[in-house]
Amino acid sequence: MKLYSRQHLENSMDYAKAVQMLETGFIAFSQGQVQVPGVQNFNFAQANGDCCVKSAYISGEDCFTVKVSTGFYDNPGKGLDSNNGLMLVLSALTGQPLALLQDEGWLTCLRTALAGQIVASRLAPSEVQCIGILGTGMQARMQLQHLLAVTDCRQVLVWGRRPAELERYRAFAEQLGCQVETTLDAKDVPGKANLIVTTTPSRTALLRSEWIRPGTHITAVGADAPGKQELEPALLARADRLFVDAIEQCSRYGESAHALSAGLIDRGKLLELGQLLSGKVEGRSNDRQITVADLTGVAVQDAQIARCALACCQAV
Amino acid sequence: MKLYSRQHLENSMDYAKAVQMLETGFIAFSQGQVQVPGVQNFNFAQANGDCCVKSAYISGEDCFTVKVSTGFYDNPGKGLDSNNGLMLVLSALTGQPLALLQDEGWLTCLRTALAGQIVASRLAPSEVQCIGILGTGMQARMQLQHLLAVTDCRQVLVWGRRPAELERYRAFAEQLGCQVETTLDAKDVPGKANLIVTTTPSRTALLRSEWIRPGTHITAVGADAPGKQELEPALLARADRLFVDAIEQCSRYGESAHALSAGLIDRGKLLELGQLLSGKVEGRSNDRQITVADLTGVAVQDAQIARCALACCQAV
Repeated sequence: MKLYSRQHLENSMDYAKAVQMLETGFIAFSQGQVQVPGVQNFNFAQANGDCCVKSAYISGEDCFTVKVSTGFYDNPGKGLDSNNGLMLVLSALTGQPLALLQDEGWLTCLRTALAGQIVASRLAPSEVQCIGILGTGMQARMQLQHLLAVTDCRQVLVWGRRPAELERYRAFAEQLGCQVETTLDAKDVPGKANLIVTTTPSRTALLRSEWIRPGTHITAVGADAPGKQELEPALLARADRLFVDAIEQCSRYGESAHALSAGLIDRGKLLELGQLLSGKVEGRSNDRQITVADLTGVAVQDAQIARCALACCQAV
Repeated sequence: MKLYSRQHLENSMDYAKAVQMLETGFIAFSQGQVQVPGVQNFNFAQANGDCCVKSAYISGEDCFTVKVSTGFYDNPGKGLDSNNGLMLVLSALTGQPLALLQDEGWLTCLRTALAGQIVASRLAPSEVQCIGILGTGMQARMQLQHLLAVTDCRQVLVWGRRPAELERYRAFAEQLGCQVETTLDAKDVPGKANLIVTTTPSRTALLRSEWIRPGTHITAVGADAPGKQELEPALLARADRLFVDAIEQCSRYGESAHALSAGLIDRGKLLELGQLLSGKVEGRSNDRQITVADLTGVAVQDAQIARCALACCQAV
């Protein structure tokens, strides 16, 4: 079994290849060609931590993936990152372990960010006036970094709760060549930005429907577990097109689940990203439409980013 | 993260410590103190393989375990073992990966064999005339090896389907100091043996109820997944005491599930091993009773054998 460190994985990654493999994965998932056993969840109440185990196999491929992700929210006080994790790649031909990717959660961040890029490449309005980011953490940075590959816009407006975090984000985004404004009022973001990504662990809506201007696209990636929420449910009802990564999962949690349980939308409104990518359903049809993507994260992304990472490591 | 090879794990293992930790684990499980998320299963039809992911955390402990087990039944034709696997131990305090135990499935075999020892130490008749083993594989060997720690009997009668396999088993058991007979007729086993372990992948009953003499104890470990079966369901109805490792799981598969679905027993007959070990329920009360243990394998065993293995590796 090969072992690869986070540093090795970061240095070897081919982002274009990863995007292509993630798109293939979303399409296979929506076509029912992926074995995705139920997620295993642990809760470590005494340590303010949790863990999930996500596994997936795309039919016909020669390997499958088991991912372990942890979040321990008191870690920063101990000088440790909150998130950690690793991925195991095993042979689907012999069952032998092939590789341990000790990515410390980086591959999960990356596959989530690249899903944001994939969505934006299909659903962003033709002219992006300003990129809006809610949140200032690792995912907020990676989303911006990978959005820049699919838009010429370099205007960024970022919202956060703490000025010091906003200033750190500004420095990061300026290094990427962006002109950055910051705000403590989330309402400012949709006033300027028409391509918005929400990346927070919020448990209440941060963006209200009435704030959103026609033509805006919003990708929400923060609500990856029950109880989390970033968008007012009325916004999902108002959206002209509502895409999700997995209809079944997004009916249980994520933004869509809130709108469904409030009776504001029905399940028929949920369109799957894989259907968009395969051309089975249409995306945005004009620059007045509001589009929303609700991404909760599916194990097929882990399987594909792991396969990509392994191929990249073996190629160098 | 520490990495340990199968050889290192085998050389370091303290069997007495493992038994004690497994008993503690069974008790904690029966007291509801273990987080055991649902098992993840994969099926690789094109390669005649499967995989399961079992994870467990005992409340209050400082680590938890994720186990990946594979079985690829065409592997022997490729010069590989059918079974493989590994265990990950992670911190329940920070989420950090602590150790990767590359046991290739050995720890699973061991925890299953030691569960057989634990059961026999409580339920075997006071005088064991002969040890009966059904099956000739790795588990059949490990069961015998660890039974010898809890009985003075060295008479062994082993049943198998292939004479060559039986001769190899004989050589193995003789090295352990046993006097060994072999048979191709399963009926012979309960005629001589009154402590019997069944270790086969059978999908039909191998032992009939009418063959079993009063005073016999039978441990069945082969039926670890739906569809598998080694004992006639009538035998479970006839048993004076019927123990299982996990009532909920054994109601779905294993020997008990067959007897339950046939209406021959009701769920109230199933007694949990952890309750026996904690003294909450009684075991055998005389040498005329027939006792049966139906062991399907629970993730708390994996968590405990992994913790034990890690402690043993770190001690040497």
